[in-house]
Amino acid sequence: METSINISGTNGKAPLSTSSKAFAVAVQHPRRGVKKGIAIGDFIIRLCAMAATMGAAITVGLADQSLPFFTQFLRFQAKYDDIPSLVFFMVANAIVTGYLVLSLPFSVICIIRPLATTPRLLLVIFDAAMAGLTMAAGSASASIIYLAHNGNPNTNWLPFCQQFGDFCQAVSGAVVGSLIAGTLLLFLLILSAFALKRS
Amino acid sequence: METSINISGTNGKAPLSTSSKAFAVAVQHPRRGVKKGIAIGDFIIRLCAMAATMGAAITVGLADQSLPFFTQFLRFQAKYDDIPSLVFFMVANAIVTGYLVLSLPFSVICIIRPLATTPRLLLVIFDAAMAGLTMAAGSASASIIYLAHNGNPNTNWLPFCQQFGDFCQAVSGAVVGSLIAGTLLLFLLILSAFALKRS
Repeated sequence: METSINISGTNGKAPLSTSSKAFAVAVQHPRRGVKKGIAIGDFIIRLCAMAATMGAAITVGLADQSLPFFTQFLRFQAKYDDIPSLVFFMVANAIVTGYLVLSLPFSVICIIRPLATTPRLLLVIFDAAMAGLTMAAGSASASIIYLAHNGNPNTNWLPFCQQFGDFCQAVSGAVVGSLIAGTLLLFLLILSAFALKRS
Repeated sequence: METSINISGTNGKAPLSTSSKAFAVAVQHPRRGVKKGIAIGDFIIRLCAMAATMGAAITVGLADQSLPFFTQFLRFQAKYDDIPSLVFFMVANAIVTGYLVLSLPFSVICIIRPLATTPRLLLVIFDAAMAGLTMAAGSASASIIYLAHNGNPNTNWLPFCQQFGDFCQAVSGAVVGSLIAGTLLLFLLILSAFALKRS
């Protein structure tokens, strides 16, 4: 608040011209540059998260076509819709990808107007929901894929990644991508908190 | 910023006495009461989340003692450490409970000084990490418990909740509690964004 009192001191001495108004804005918001940098970082991280979730959704979605082989003693065919968690995983990642695409204009608004709080708060609210969804989808599938790799002798659940190695590899990569995207979205929330902070 | 210019208008008329300084602080921060309310809400939600994660960790931890019965054709005994996801679930919920206990003093500081940003930013950073951990633990266990209830004929994973109904009930409740706690932590992040917002 000290800076604004300084400005009004200037205000008392002389009426504001256009150039001194611009100067006053610069003095009023000494961290405007920092906040613009945060907004640009937000945009880049958002693009990375979008790439990760899109890649994860497409990888899992295509994993049913890329594996035509089967063994005669297992009637299991390696498709994503054989496992409910992977269906949820694909839908959730597709939703998050769609949200991230739609959020890019708001992120651009935050770059152009780094001190606007309304678009930033909108982003925070939906980022939080989407971060939760991405983490939930990623870790639900992670536990299933761990089971597919290692099995669980205590519950007589046998692993099947020996038979369907490529499918397991593809899904494991997608799960890692989704968990990275979830972490990036949580990081976006922290960045938004710094952007909203009273400087 | 208009309010601060108003104050300096007053400043030009008369030198600030102690009482008018207090008045100036009140005018400078017209949303101080709102932010205090947000901080109190933060504290209450934090307590609820703590109760949920603590209950979840204890429920899963005790589930190995409460079920002594077994069947002769399954060598599985219903303990939480038979399933790796449930071990992770218990550890993660215990960590989050510990964090939430340690975060209570910071939340109290935010109630006493609603305009302080440093404790609030500290809370945001760790809340984001813990929200991710809670959601991950909850949903990883949710997918395993879904499997325990319904099985998956495509992968020859048979359900065992017919035999171990009480165990499954206890763990399902704990998973729901953990997911609620994760949602509350994400909601805390949104609340913190509103608390940090420039009024």
